[in-house]
Amino acid sequence: MTDRQPAFVLVRPQMGENIGAAARAMWNFGLDRMRMVDPRDGWPNPRAVALASGAGRLLDGAGVFHTTADALADCHYVFATTARPRGMTKPVFTPEAAMAKAREMTAEGRKVAVMFGPERAGLENADIIQANAIISVPVNPDFPSLNLAQCVLLTAYEWRRADVPADGERMEMGGTEPATGLEVEKLAAHYEERLDQAGFFFPETKAEGMKANLRNLWSRMPLTRADVQMFHGMLRQMVRWKERG
Amino acid sequence: MTDRQPAFVLVRPQMGENIGAAARAMWNFGLDRMRMVDPRDGWPNPRAVALASGAGRLLDGAGVFHTTADALADCHYVFATTARPRGMTKPVFTPEAAMAKAREMTAEGRKVAVMFGPERAGLENADIIQANAIISVPVNPDFPSLNLAQCVLLTAYEWRRADVPADGERMEMGGTEPATGLEVEKLAAHYEERLDQAGFFFPETKAEGMKANLRNLWSRMPLTRADVQMFHGMLRQMVRWKERG
Repeated sequence: MTDRQPAFVLVRPQMGENIGAAARAMWNFGLDRMRMVDPRDGWPNPRAVALASGAGRLLDGAGVFHTTADALADCHYVFATTARPRGMTKPVFTPEAAMAKAREMTAEGRKVAVMFGPERAGLENADIIQANAIISVPVNPDFPSLNLAQCVLLTAYEWRRADVPADGERMEMGGTEPATGLEVEKLAAHYEERLDQAGFFFPETKAEGMKANLRNLWSRMPLTRADVQMFHGMLRQMVRWKERG
Repeated sequence: MTDRQPAFVLVRPQMGENIGAAARAMWNFGLDRMRMVDPRDGWPNPRAVALASGAGRLLDGAGVFHTTADALADCHYVFATTARPRGMTKPVFTPEAAMAKAREMTAEGRKVAVMFGPERAGLENADIIQANAIISVPVNPDFPSLNLAQCVLLTAYEWRRADVPADGERMEMGGTEPATGLEVEKLAAHYEERLDQAGFFFPETKAEGMKANLRNLWSRMPLTRADVQMFHGMLRQMVRWKERG
C-alpha cells in the first residue's frame, strides 16, 4: 500500500458498528489510514471490531485524538463532508473532483485528510471551519440521508476511481475470441444454403429481401468463435434429425 | 420523477434489513423502481419496512416475482452486478459506463434493469446468463466484499452522476425495436426444446453446460423483434422440412 493516500477522519462517531462499517468501506477501495476524534463510546470498541471483519487492521492502526485540531495537525489540506450547505465561503467539490485533487496533492507529498461527521447531525461548523474545502455528495434533494459508512464508501470509491483509469467497457471473453469476417460469412452461407433447401425463402418474390435481412442479422451480432460453432452445430443437428426421418 | 429510469432487481435477497437499506440507497439518488425475485423471507417483510424509513414508498411499489425471467420479461437491456469474473462471454462495464449507457437507453424509451444478487453468494450463473452485460465495481482485489446495499448505492450514485443530456451514440432501429426479455426468453426456450428433440445436447453429461452457453448466447445478442421472428421462422422451417421427410 502506498503511503500516498488521504486519512479519513471520523469526528465524534457514535455507534461502534458504524466505525467498523466505515473501516470496511475504506478498505474496499484500498484506503487504510483511519483517524478518530473523541469516539462517543471510547476506544477500543468491540462493536467496531466485530463489524470491521476483514478490515480490523485499520482499527488497530487508527489514531485517536481528543480534538479535531489535534487530528488534523500534520495535514496540508483538509476536506469536510457535509450533506447540507452551511453558508460558509469555501470551495465545494463533488466527491469525484475532490478525490482527483487529493490524488494530485498526495502525489506531491502533501498530507490530505477527509473529515466525516457524527451520524445524527454531521460535522459542526467549528469542525468545518478547520477544513480547506467541502465535499458535497450530489444526493436526491428530497432524501439526502446518507449514513456515515455510505459517505465514506462513496468518497473511497472516488479515490480509487481517480487512480485506476478503468476501461469503461471491456468484453469478458470467457476463453473465446471474436469471430472473423470470414467465419461470419461462412456461417451466413451455411444457413442460407440449408434454409434454401428447407424452403424457408418463400415466396420467391421475397426471397432476396429475406436473404439480405438474414445476412444483416448475422453481421450485426457480436459473434464469438464459440458462437459461430454453436450456430453451425445447431443447424447441422437439425439436418441430421431431418435425415434420420 | 421521470418514468425513464432503470429498475433495480434484487434477486433472492435474504435479510429484510438489506432490502430496506437498498431502498434507501436507491432513493438517495432519486431511483424508485424496485423489483424482487423470490425474497427468502417472503413479502411483505416488516424488517425491510423498518429499515427503509423514508423510502418505504419504494417497497410499497416494488414488484415481486417468482423467477428472474419473470422479473425481466418487459426489459430490453439487463445488467448483472458481479464481484468476481464468471468466465462468460459478456461485455463488462464499470458502474459509471453502465449508468451512462442506461441513461442513453432509457432516454430512447428502452426499459433497463440492473440485477443484484443475494447477500452471501451473489448472482448465480443462471441469472447472469439472462443479462446483456455485467457491471463490475473496481474494488480492492484484496478485499472485494461489498454488501448488497453498498453495491446498490454505488450504482445509484453513478446513475445520478450520469444525469447529463447524452446523445453521443444511438442505434438506428430501421423500423423495428429491441426485443424484450420475454421475447428472448421464449426464443431461447423454442430452440432448447427443438434442439433437445433433435438430439443436439449430447452427451448427456454436457447437456446442461451446452444449454447454459446457448442461453447466454441469446441474451448477449442485441436482438430486435424482427430478429427474434427471423430466428423463430428459421427453426420452424427446419422442423417442417424434417416432418415432410
